[in-house]
Amino acid sequence: MKVLVVGATGTLGAAVTTLLATRHDVVTASRTGPTDVKVDIVDPASIAAMYEQVGRVDAVACTAGSVPFKEVGDLSREDVESAALNKLLGQVELVRRGLDAVADNGSFTLITGILAGEPVRTGSMSSMANGGIDAFVRGAAVELPRGLRINSVSPTVFTESAEAYDAVFPGFPPVDVATAALAYRRSIEGAQTGQTFRVGW
Amino acid sequence: MKVLVVGATGTLGAAVTTLLATRHDVVTASRTGPTDVKVDIVDPASIAAMYEQVGRVDAVACTAGSVPFKEVGDLSREDVESAALNKLLGQVELVRRGLDAVADNGSFTLITGILAGEPVRTGSMSSMANGGIDAFVRGAAVELPRGLRINSVSPTVFTESAEAYDAVFPGFPPVDVATAALAYRRSIEGAQTGQTFRVGW
Repeated sequence: MKVLVVGATGTLGAAVTTLLATRHDVVTASRTGPTDVKVDIVDPASIAAMYEQVGRVDAVACTAGSVPFKEVGDLSREDVESAALNKLLGQVELVRRGLDAVADNGSFTLITGILAGEPVRTGSMSSMANGGIDAFVRGAAVELPRGLRINSVSPTVFTESAEAYDAVFPGFPPVDVATAALAYRRSIEGAQTGQTFRVGW
Repeated sequence: MKVLVVGATGTLGAAVTTLLATRHDVVTASRTGPTDVKVDIVDPASIAAMYEQVGRVDAVACTAGSVPFKEVGDLSREDVESAALNKLLGQVELVRRGLDAVADNGSFTLITGILAGEPVRTGSMSSMANGGIDAFVRGAAVELPRGLRINSVSPTVFTESAEAYDAVFPGFPPVDVATAALAYRRSIEGAQTGQTFRVGW
């Protein structure tokens, strides 16, 4: 399969790329590079240009999407809009613009996370984006054409970044990022759709 | 208690107003009126002006929030942004701007719906907004100050509008809107926070 990995330079994106490259033709994309293609998922025109450049693919695997971490009382309107436009609408746009780029029976796999279900302080925007994407995946799955499938991967904190996030996720058992990468393979090569694959929680 | 009902002219908003007015001082708000106050939840300045006009309240009950119903392949970028800005960010803004308006131990009660968990064709934007709000509620609840609480009410289709929505919700058992209104009373007068009260599903 030809698989487009969006966010390929991140901790998770690199692990997904490494795993999938052993059995698929992987095309990498990210905002900052170095990758095969540059893309900023906040910008619909950038997403359209990426699909134009990459051509037909069998799967889109997104590991990109950031949100501000602040207490509700400290959130500015800009913070709220940023969370919505990036991890939430950015990934919806990847699907919307990708409908014509993904081959019959292909798939979309989006990234969410544990905060959809298990909240932490400063995490309300992450919760919102994750919960929105998990529900969008369920909603879109029932009507995608041509056998297209869509799932989300929802990991807990990664072992590789657990120290950096220790204050935000106190007492959360971390999971190796390679285990989260497996969920992308399961989504892409498996038969399920409309699912959220939890990893480590 | 002094309770601000946002979206008071809608099917649900009217039922919530009727129920709560029997035991509380209810202030009504809506986009089109006739209500005590006018507000458009898409417009942050309008929300700020509403709180300025209404003054201190003990509870904010939102029954407002619309989303476009279209298949994923028919969604325009404007449709996606509209869904995000209205039911999703509009309600987040009601909370963000309302933090200083709600009295100690007061509450926010937001509206979501069954499509967060049970998808239908054309419902992906509703799923997204509902899932985003349900998760935001869980996220915000753990850090709201001064004993403030926050919950969402997630009804299935209403008996009163079941005929109009029959094609979108085939075979979904409807629930009386008065039953959904009870969930607002439960949220406002009860002790729970971070909860999604499902009604009829």
